[in-house]
Amino acid sequence: MAAQGDRGVPLSTLCPKYLHANSTSHTWPFSAIAELIDNAYDPDVNAKQFWIDKIVVKKQDCLSFMDNGYGLDKDKIHKMLSFGYSDKTPVKGVKPIGMYGNGFKSGSMRLGRDAIVFSKSKSVSCVGMLSQTYLEEIGANQIIVPIVCFERKEKKNVREEHKASLQDILRYSPFNKPEEIQAEIDGISSKTGTRIIIWNLRSTSSKPSEFDFERDRYDIRIPSEFDETMKDAAPKPGPSQVTKSNIPESVSSLRAYCSILYLKPRMQIIVRGQKVKSQLIAKTLAFVRKDHYKPTFLPKRIPITFGYNTRSKDQYGIMLYHKNRLIKAYERVGCQLKANNKGVGVIGIIECFFLEPTHNKQSFDETDKYRKTMNSIPRSDRIKTG
Amino acid sequence: MAAQGDRGVPLSTLCPKYLHANSTSHTWPFSAIAELIDNAYDPDVNAKQFWIDKIVVKKQDCLSFMDNGYGLDKDKIHKMLSFGYSDKTPVKGVKPIGMYGNGFKSGSMRLGRDAIVFSKSKSVSCVGMLSQTYLEEIGANQIIVPIVCFERKEKKNVREEHKASLQDILRYSPFNKPEEIQAEIDGISSKTGTRIIIWNLRSTSSKPSEFDFERDRYDIRIPSEFDETMKDAAPKPGPSQVTKSNIPESVSSLRAYCSILYLKPRMQIIVRGQKVKSQLIAKTLAFVRKDHYKPTFLPKRIPITFGYNTRSKDQYGIMLYHKNRLIKAYERVGCQLKANNKGVGVIGIIECFFLEPTHNKQSFDETDKYRKTMNSIPRSDRIKTG
Repeated sequence: MAAQGDRGVPLSTLCPKYLHANSTSHTWPFSAIAELIDNAYDPDVNAKQFWIDKIVVKKQDCLSFMDNGYGLDKDKIHKMLSFGYSDKTPVKGVKPIGMYGNGFKSGSMRLGRDAIVFSKSKSVSCVGMLSQTYLEEIGANQIIVPIVCFERKEKKNVREEHKASLQDILRYSPFNKPEEIQAEIDGISSKTGTRIIIWNLRSTSSKPSEFDFERDRYDIRIPSEFDETMKDAAPKPGPSQVTKSNIPESVSSLRAYCSILYLKPRMQIIVRGQKVKSQLIAKTLAFVRKDHYKPTFLPKRIPITFGYNTRSKDQYGIMLYHKNRLIKAYERVGCQLKANNKGVGVIGIIECFFLEPTHNKQSFDETDKYRKTMNSIPRSDRIKTG
Repeated sequence: MAAQGDRGVPLSTLCPKYLHANSTSHTWPFSAIAELIDNAYDPDVNAKQFWIDKIVVKKQDCLSFMDNGYGLDKDKIHKMLSFGYSDKTPVKGVKPIGMYGNGFKSGSMRLGRDAIVFSKSKSVSCVGMLSQTYLEEIGANQIIVPIVCFERKEKKNVREEHKASLQDILRYSPFNKPEEIQAEIDGISSKTGTRIIIWNLRSTSSKPSEFDFERDRYDIRIPSEFDETMKDAAPKPGPSQVTKSNIPESVSSLRAYCSILYLKPRMQIIVRGQKVKSQLIAKTLAFVRKDHYKPTFLPKRIPITFGYNTRSKDQYGIMLYHKNRLIKAYERVGCQLKANNKGVGVIGIIECFFLEPTHNKQSFDETDKYRKTMNSIPRSDRIKTG
């Protein structure tokens, strides 16, 4: 396994098993989907629309994620299928959410064992595959990632250096003919864009999929029998334990989650053919008031928006965003944690630019700063009188 | 960057920046140290003793971790410096704690920017380096890991294939002469064993080190001014917020943490020259009683040990272990979360083989199973009458 780098010094290598290990930071499957949405949303791709679908390829349920962003060339696909090559930078004031160059790997491999990426950029069309099944079947002791490019002008011809990759994609992906590959590329209806298809979706001990695609044909849901994975996003129990009624819809409905994922959405998300209505939560609340709070470690006050949840009295708490992306939802603070009626129904919205999201972006590092932040919110007027 | 694998298919590659990204799952630095301790403790190394020291190498503070386990040959060091090559299996009933083949990378790179590993196995001595500073200085676009072997018989001669590695280690590690390398190998006093030295230790915005080495010369402490990193291990606030007095000593003292890290210790840990007294917590409690509780999803009852904390009335809750390793400490349950005196001072100890630790092994996946477990404990008699 001792592949040598240019200097004659061994390369650190990647075991195929690492693909699973690395995906375990996403315990809640929507946390994995959010990584793929973030990638399209970030300014280096800058998609205006993002489609999430359940599709069937050769009798097999697959997840499909498509964007109409800039698309990827061969070098970018290779970086996407490698680890840590994030070079995202702010563009026109839009700060990228992704930092670590790991979202596609950890996200896609959490959802299924195998993924294929089709992309159209200005100059070229590319296909890349990251597949645990493939690596297992060929007995690979390192992660290899077949990548094929098609020049725009001569669609059919593949360069010599890509022939081995093409052969492996045709043999081990669900797309076994060059025409099928081409059809998927052509299926990206926008001028440029990227489509990810994930197959061999994760199953549970009792069901073929961890998702429920049936209950709502315009949604992707986590079945309530399978709430084992409803991690992270669920509010921590206060003095009374969590009950069904106060678990937010966003924990089990992808549509509901997508509707609050970005504080100020810049990209339309379409789940199974139907547009997600961004909640822009502040606007859906009653008796909205702007307020401020001041964590002790910060020199100035931070704005916070409060209001009553008009949709469900049981779902309340603070919504914490970071760079416009939802990190924690319905986090109970102060009097909301106590068994009285204070603060019930009150929703607060804050942008915590001064905190650090955890590795899986579903919480903040539980530092002293985080605690001080959560402790200083309840001192705000609105929540007391709630 | 498109290095080709054997099949002519590109390798997935590792960006040097990934070393930092991958370490961010450890927010609390003792969580990173625990990974290194686990590696020595696991049956494939099977050390009987483990030494943790702060040392000074060429005027620079370093951390040193040494074990007297089996030692590593060249292939094992390369796996250790690569990602996901865990092949740990149970030996004589001892189940390995490590699963993912990521502990050394995530742990060492959380503590400092650079690490060097010296190891003596039966047949050979080896040195390997994982260094962010080195990779940055040579402008590497992949992670390369210099590895050198010295056959036992001819200490001085290095095989041709290792010469580039030796050169880079001498140039970029704190050990700049072959004799200095040899001295470190000889410094492993046991017949076989491994020593890890980490330099360029993480600093904070205000201090050169995140650790306090001064306050107690036999301990490594996280200064209380720097409690920003006191994540994970700290108990979640109940209705009353966390105060200094109920933050357990194990959150800020490495000695205290090591004393409870394994439920049934098989390895002696020595922190800065002084043995850690394993707390074997059940034995340090007063009025100990064995009890059982039964999560609804399990067919049979699980033993739980209860007792009073005789050392500090403020530190109480449930200690949750997994495969003998502490995952969560002082977790308040049931009546302990309420503002009355019930359950105060009561410690419970359980081995949660039926739950899954999170990626950083500092919590359990917050699944339904986890919630049901935490809800069923308080129904046990002892804690009610506490």
